Amino acid sequence: MIHPVPNLTTAQTGPLLPIEAHILNEVTTIEAWFREQWAKTPAPVMSSVDLRHAGFKLAPVDTNLFPAGYNNLNSDFIPLCVQALQSYLGNQCQRVLLLPENHTRNQFYHQSLLILRDMLLNAGYQVRLGNISFEQTQAQTFQVGDFDTLLLEPLLRQNDRVVLADYDPDLIILNNDLSAGIPDILQNITQRIEPTPQLGWAYRSKADHFRQYHDVVQEFAPLIHLDPWLINPIFSVVSDLDFMAKTGIDRLSAEVDAVLQQVKERYQLMEIESEPYVVVKADNGTYGMGIIIVHDASEIVNLNRKQRTKMAKIKGNQTVTQVLIQEGVYSLEKMADGAVAEPVVYMVGQYVVGGFYRVHRDLGVNDNLNSPGMHFEPLAFAKACNLPKYHHVDGHHRFYAYGVIARLAALAAAREAASIRGHHR
Amino acid sequence: MIHPVPNLTTAQTGPLLPIEAHILNEVTTIEAWFREQWAKTPAPVMSSVDLRHAGFKLAPVDTNLFPAGYNNLNSDFIPLCVQALQSYLGNQCQRVLLLPENHTRNQFYHQSLLILRDMLLNAGYQVRLGNISFEQTQAQTFQVGDFDTLLLEPLLRQNDRVVLADYDPDLIILNNDLSAGIPDILQNITQRIEPTPQLGWAYRSKADHFRQYHDVVQEFAPLIHLDPWLINPIFSVVSDLDFMAKTGIDRLSAEVDAVLQQVKERYQLMEIESEPYVVVKADNGTYGMGIIIVHDASEIVNLNRKQRTKMAKIKGNQTVTQVLIQEGVYSLEKMADGAVAEPVVYMVGQYVVGGFYRVHRDLGVNDNLNSPGMHFEPLAFAKACNLPKYHHVDGHHRFYAYGVIARLAALAAAREAASIRGHHR
Repeated sequence: MIHPVPNLTTAQTGPLLPIEAHILNEVTTIEAWFREQWAKTPAPVMSSVDLRHAGFKLAPVDTNLFPAGYNNLNSDFIPLCVQALQSYLGNQCQRVLLLPENHTRNQFYHQSLLILRDMLLNAGYQVRLGNISFEQTQAQTFQVGDFDTLLLEPLLRQNDRVVLADYDPDLIILNNDLSAGIPDILQNITQRIEPTPQLGWAYRSKADHFRQYHDVVQEFAPLIHLDPWLINPIFSVVSDLDFMAKTGIDRLSAEVDAVLQQVKERYQLMEIESEPYVVVKADNGTYGMGIIIVHDASEIVNLNRKQRTKMAKIKGNQTVTQVLIQEGVYSLEKMADGAVAEPVVYMVGQYVVGGFYRVHRDLGVNDNLNSPGMHFEPLAFAKACNLPKYHHVDGHHRFYAYGVIARLAALAAAREAASIRGHHR
Repeated sequence: MIHPVPNLTTAQTGPLLPIEAHILNEVTTIEAWFREQWAKTPAPVMSSVDLRHAGFKLAPVDTNLFPAGYNNLNSDFIPLCVQALQSYLGNQCQRVLLLPENHTRNQFYHQSLLILRDMLLNAGYQVRLGNISFEQTQAQTFQVGDFDTLLLEPLLRQNDRVVLADYDPDLIILNNDLSAGIPDILQNITQRIEPTPQLGWAYRSKADHFRQYHDVVQEFAPLIHLDPWLINPIFSVVSDLDFMAKTGIDRLSAEVDAVLQQVKERYQLMEIESEPYVVVKADNGTYGMGIIIVHDASEIVNLNRKQRTKMAKIKGNQTVTQVLIQEGVYSLEKMADGAVAEPVVYMVGQYVVGGFYRVHRDLGVNDNLNSPGMHFEPLAFAKACNLPKYHHVDGHHRFYAYGVIARLAALAAAREAASIRGHHR
């Protein structure tokens, strides 16, 4: 579990960029504001946010409420995770039921799950793992590494509660993104379940998320006198699409052009020489699926059959009818070997607990790095996120800014959850 | 702020000792129990606990509610401190007034204070420093290192509140141990003040603390099937003493003998070959003052004038009339160079946030290391305190046990505070 810290050429050297310095000058204001926000809207129990840092601009591009990848965190962060869990869950629960992705034999996912389970155990909670698949009536055991095993037990329904044969949990934590919808066994339960299953990818909308994020930024940026665009990608939403039948492709193309124009105007204003691009994302996609990079609206009209098929269906076999068009943010950050890197920030509740870099040797500064061939580089994030001041020397203090942007995205997710609760009330 | 981790011959090598292994096997039970305890009795805002590790036995010997020494913490712990402050203080305060020791020009103390102030700032609270001396009517500035300054401002009384000229704090944090008593300006205020001034050393009693600790251990040890003696030094209290007039010295000598006998019986039972000793401590002493080491009761009767003078008066010019006789715990822990080391564990609220070793090259395994000539070695404590499991390899997991014992002592202090509040109600 001990990893070397990679030499990130742009992340660890050079003077602070204006946006980083700006955020670093406002620590007390920012932390006090977040405190008020979390009192109004509780943070998600766990989240991870993918960021892109273009130098002039630092923005979230994806917010995950069912994070895996705990195995990619530097073990130095684990105490922060444990402490944050104790703080967030407090005395409100004793027995946790963790519901992971099922039907997976992915060793990396099992490692992540093992760490998540042990963090909860070490925070002082009982933890057992359940299998939400109704087909599984037998417990399954997975060997993880040489020393550990994971036991996934079949779920039982007891009136309005989900239980194991001899275990009645008072908190259910979902680590399954419910791409295929909410299974019957989780319908209408009275136990506390985090996150709410309505935020599973069968229901969640990236558009909703970035609308909430937009509102969060409109409140936050003026507080520290920051141009909101510097932390908020321009976006638009197009609905009623059918990629296979080519329904709505012209509307999509026109809207892509509109977003590209807005970005171009901004670039001209700020004398940025890069070519604007947008990322078109399936509104309910995950796992880096259903994503295309577009530099010119004509590319949309000319999508070939393979590309349209790729956009039409995503994980859980869902049809894509709505997309998010999002301003592309170039990644300034590179590893020492030149590979493009994208920071991923992890949170437990309102606390930034760590992060790592997603790295892709074969892709460029405007590509989606969440694609085959990527790997992960753990990093000493957490120090910086919590105490910028004492890191003059090694330059880590710039990561404080990452922790701020990631928390703004987590706050947007918190408001998504609150709006669902409001809706159901 | 970056220190090398010293090679502690006993702390970092060798198999787990039985008491460490025993505690490590009960993490979930222990953490769940602590959670319940903190819900009943809030932890002190800050505390540090001196431990002694004899191998067969691990016990607290002093619990400080006004910790300095933040400058001795490895900077890796700072994020844990900040996160713990955010969790502990939450949204209940915005403006903190920190009241440090006054009349000190100790650079190390000022460094500690600077870190404490910046931790609070970085947790998102406003912080200013006040000077509780009524003689100080002007603000004082202290230069700390090359880049920082501390401003100590004069206090003003506004009805039942303590304020600065243009700052009305909603939380006062005492980092002054009030050895000389509670100054008038702090009497009968309605603001929240942590710790309560009644726990200043003019009022606090080591005997009360170890009585509370005894009760805590009586509840805790059976839960994990541990012999309470292994984490609790035998102690006794003798009152109505006057060292200068030699009043009560015979009673003290008899009681020292009684404690030595109890320790001897325990040592014989467990086949421990070391010679038992006790530490006689002024009941309200601090800063390592008013302490003598005794191997035989006759030493008490034969105290010379210099030794009696040393015991008679402590910091703040208080007279010592009551002493604690405490079973001495040998220190097994040594630095690579053979110097004896004693762990000091730091907590913010209920969270273990770090620690260091107090080291003395010139003293032996049964000496009080809190004496001139000591120095401090920062250590990577925090990891282990929170997540033992992932530290098989580097052996840090044994420190989890240290974090448990330190928190038991902090819980005893929390109960002292609660009993004062109950008393005043």
